Amino acid sequence: MRQEPANPAVRKRVQDSFGRQGLMSHLGARLAHIGPGRVHIVLPARPEVTQQHGYVHAGATSAIADSAGGYAALTLFDEESEVLTVEYKINLLAPAAGDHLEAIGSVLKAGRTLTVCQLEVHGVRSDGTRKLVANGQQTLIRVSRPVA
Amino acid sequence: MRQEPANPAVRKRVQDSFGRQGLMSHLGARLAHIGPGRVHIVLPARPEVTQQHGYVHAGATSAIADSAGGYAALTLFDEESEVLTVEYKINLLAPAAGDHLEAIGSVLKAGRTLTVCQLEVHGVRSDGTRKLVANGQQTLIRVSRPVA
Amino acid sequence: MRQEPANPAVRKRVQDSFGRQGLMSHLGARLAHIGPGRVHIVLPARPEVTQQHGYVHAGATSAIADSAGGYAALTLFDEESEVLTVEYKINLLAPAAGDHLEAIGSVLKAGRTLTVCQLEVHGVRSDGTRKLVANGQQTLIRVSRPVA
Amino acid sequence: MRQEPANPAVRKRVQDSFGRQGLMSHLGARLAHIGPGRVHIVLPARPEVTQQHGYVHAGATSAIADSAGGYAALTLFDEESEVLTVEYKINLLAPAAGDHLEAIGSVLKAGRTLTVCQLEVHGVRSDGTRKLVANGQQTLIRVSRPVA
Repeated sequence: MRQEPANPAVRKRVQDSFGRQGLMSHLGARLAHIGPGRVHIVLPARPEVTQQHGYVHAGATSAIADSAGGYAALTLFDEESEVLTVEYKINLLAPAAGDHLEAIGSVLKAGRTLTVCQLEVHGVRSDGTRKLVANGQQTLIRVSRPVA
Repeated sequence: MRQEPANPAVRKRVQDSFGRQGLMSHLGARLAHIGPGRVHIVLPARPEVTQQHGYVHAGATSAIADSAGGYAALTLFDEESEVLTVEYKINLLAPAAGDHLEAIGSVLKAGRTLTVCQLEVHGVRSDGTRKLVANGQQTLIRVSRPVA
Repeated sequence: MRQEPANPAVRKRVQDSFGRQGLMSHLGARLAHIGPGRVHIVLPARPEVTQQHGYVHAGATSAIADSAGGYAALTLFDEESEVLTVEYKINLLAPAAGDHLEAIGSVLKAGRTLTVCQLEVHGVRSDGTRKLVANGQQTLIRVSRPVA
Repeated sequence: MRQEPANPAVRKRVQDSFGRQGLMSHLGARLAHIGPGRVHIVLPARPEVTQQHGYVHAGATSAIADSAGGYAALTLFDEESEVLTVEYKINLLAPAAGDHLEAIGSVLKAGRTLTVCQLEVHGVRSDGTRKLVANGQQTLIRVSRPVA
């Protein structure tokens, strides 16, 4: 049920915004699911995103988690709205190993001004086995989009 | 006083570890100061590290803050020790604008097992003016270095 | 399934420890469920636990959440172990209203040294309706119990 | 400099609001300093605020830290404003021992909607020696006071 896709206009808004995040393409991240209040972002493991032991760096893990939460919130607002991250907290539960990481942002509580999301990041092996490598909580603020 | 450099052996350990973090070089980050319990990392603003509005992405801001805190802790331990991030929390206080960002990790409390660091990230303009753009708190765990 | 009770020895250890927490009895909190990796604590709303608007104070909300998480972790360890809170983060999602609050601590990841719990607090009305009023994440450390 | 008192009207507003927090008086906490952007709250150690080992419970430590931060923010706003805690994160750095605890909330960044505070709690012995026992970071939201 929670895997239902968002409507086309919402998907397009998320895709367009994601396309403007230079960091996401530089890291090699891509949108894997856009549902109402829920967005998945995938990051292939490669040397450009590692820490000193060869696992994915907490900063890269956090970056896709933060974007997943931000876009999960954005799916719930109209096209005049933007969301900005106020803060987040993330626990790194296990070495971020695997063929790729999948970050899942899901809205826990959406409000007029503030929205709170849960963040999960899974390490996924090429055989499909998954392990939770990070878990977090994020606060976002809705702002009106500047008129172009 | 807090700006004193660490001893050469400590500096070398931090530099070697930083050099193995594929993400740091991919982002274009570099070590700017290595002192006892305090490390600075600089990240030039460029399109590869942006979010959708052209500011530095919270994920890149967090990545240098996380590394700065981790290396600040590492300066206090012997060469048999490594540190891993347990968790961190970061508030994004202002748009991460400027010519470059400077992340400062400083040890608040060092313990045998756990260390807590404060994280600051400043946006620095080419004229030298600075603004605090993010502030956080991080918990790290010391682990014994695996024998090669 | 997750509501299964813990074994009697574990329950007794949790109850004995809870009984020694002067704050819990002073607030009027009580243990409502002790399961493996999951503990519920109930706090009746009364003037002694309020903030300035008459809702339950974030500090009281946090106190039962923190204890629920700590005891959830404790259920998974042997009798030689104690757990201490390293840190937690909590979002106050809605005014903590209701006849009583119910805090639920559940273990997300148990490790040899560190354990991470999720914390939820619900406001429960006398008619049984529930609302999530706070959500958090907690890190705990296992320590050996001092020999008496 | 930071220890300067707030003006009398601000002090009165903080004292009145604090006086309505049932939890603070039930715990035995009192306001110790009200300055612009900075408030101190003292909590005497006594059996009613302990955890299972006889130290002050993390929940009580957090409660005074949360109130100190909230009132620090309130000192910066006009009388039509209230502040509510959005979230906070706190590290318990050492056992909360001492004759009393002193929580210090200080504003790191005040905004029109959101304010971020730093939270410190010190354990103070009867001989005046102090130790940092907890450190945190808090996000607050300003709301308009309801008309009576």
